[in-house]
Order: sequence, then C-alpha cells, then structure tokens
Amino acid sequence: MPIANTPSTPYYAVIFTSIRTAGDNGYGKMADAMIEAAAKQPGFLGIESAREELGITVSYWDSLESIAAWKQDTAHLQAQQTGRDQWYASYKTRICLVERDYDFSKM
Amino acid sequence: MPIANTPSTPYYAVIFTSIRTAGDNGYGKMADAMIEAAAKQPGFLGIESAREELGITVSYWDSLESIAAWKQDTAHLQAQQTGRDQWYASYKTRICLVERDYDFSKM
Repeated sequence: MPIANTPSTPYYAVIFTSIRTAGDNGYGKMADAMIEAAAKQPGFLGIESAREELGITVSYWDSLESIAAWKQDTAHLQAQQTGRDQWYASYKTRICLVERDYDFSKM
Repeated sequence: MPIANTPSTPYYAVIFTSIRTAGDNGYGKMADAMIEAAAKQPGFLGIESAREELGITVSYWDSLESIAAWKQDTAHLQAQQTGRDQWYASYKTRICLVERDYDFSKM
C-alpha cells in the first residue's frame, strides 16, 4: 500500500482508529473487501492503513456528501454492524477537512 | 497505546504517513522520544500510531498555532532533518480540521 496520492487541498479525510477483539472471525477478508468497495465509490481519493496495537485507516474523499454516501452503502452498513458485534472492542471515527499538506520523497 | 481521548470538536489533526528506509539507524529510539516530547507541548491533545508497510501517526492539537510551534521545536527540527536524511524513503503530512467525531466501545 503506497502513500495516498491525493489531489490539492482542500479535501476530506476520515480517520478510523480501532482496537480489535481477539480472533479473525472473518475480519481480514471483510477489511480487504471494504477497501476494494470504498475505492469504487464516487468521490474516493485514496486510503492508507496500518495496524499494531491500534489500527488506523485513513480514507480520503472529495466531499462530505461522498463520505455520507459511503457510510450508507449497503455492504458497508453490514460490515459496520458486524464490526460492532464482533470485530472491534472500540473505535473512533473522525471526519476532517484537510487544509494543507506537504510531502517528501527521496526519489 | 489507546485511542486518543480527544475533546469535543473542532480540533486539529496532523496525519503523518511514511515509508521507512531499511534498518533502524536510531529511528525507534527517536520516534519514542518525539512522542514523549510532543505530549509535553502546549495544545497537544493526543497521539495514535501504527506501522506495517506504511507508518501512520496522527497527532491531535488544539490549534494551528500549537502545530506550528511543535514543528519549530529544536529537537523536533533535528529529528525532521535526520528523517529526511536517513529514516524515510517518503512521507506526507496533512494538516486537518476535525469537524465531527463519534465513537463506539463495548465497555
């Protein structure tokens, strides 16, 4: 997974920070499927994810409307429900306006 | 590391996404020291971090002024320079206004 190649600011970020329950319980497969499904949504700009003790997934979007539509996607609603029932001990979602960004690359 | 216990919105987030070079080269020790130093800064609200292929560190702040002051901190400037010289193949920093948040916990 590369660093998301997002457009010029402003755009939106959804920071999803989570702590998993024990065991996979279908989580890995669903997480991959959700990344694939998000990438097909209108207004999707990119995604970045890593997990150690905490899991942090940041998805990038062109507007609050695109974020709201993805939140209401049928397969995503099902994943959210299973997330609360089985996969997550706790999580926090933060909806953010990215005001500025800058990057560095050795290449 | 728990999920950051941030206050009511609005507040700011700095999303720092990075890809490391090979080898530690003092990175682990400096990363821990920088988290400790950031936590002592005025306006610091919390931090979350995870690394797999990508490293994602999100720090939370009360204002753009607090973010700017931490960016100019002497020890942090030195770490940023060594980061570009040695530790990071590439990185992207995004300065964000957190407009809304919501959370879930089984407890």
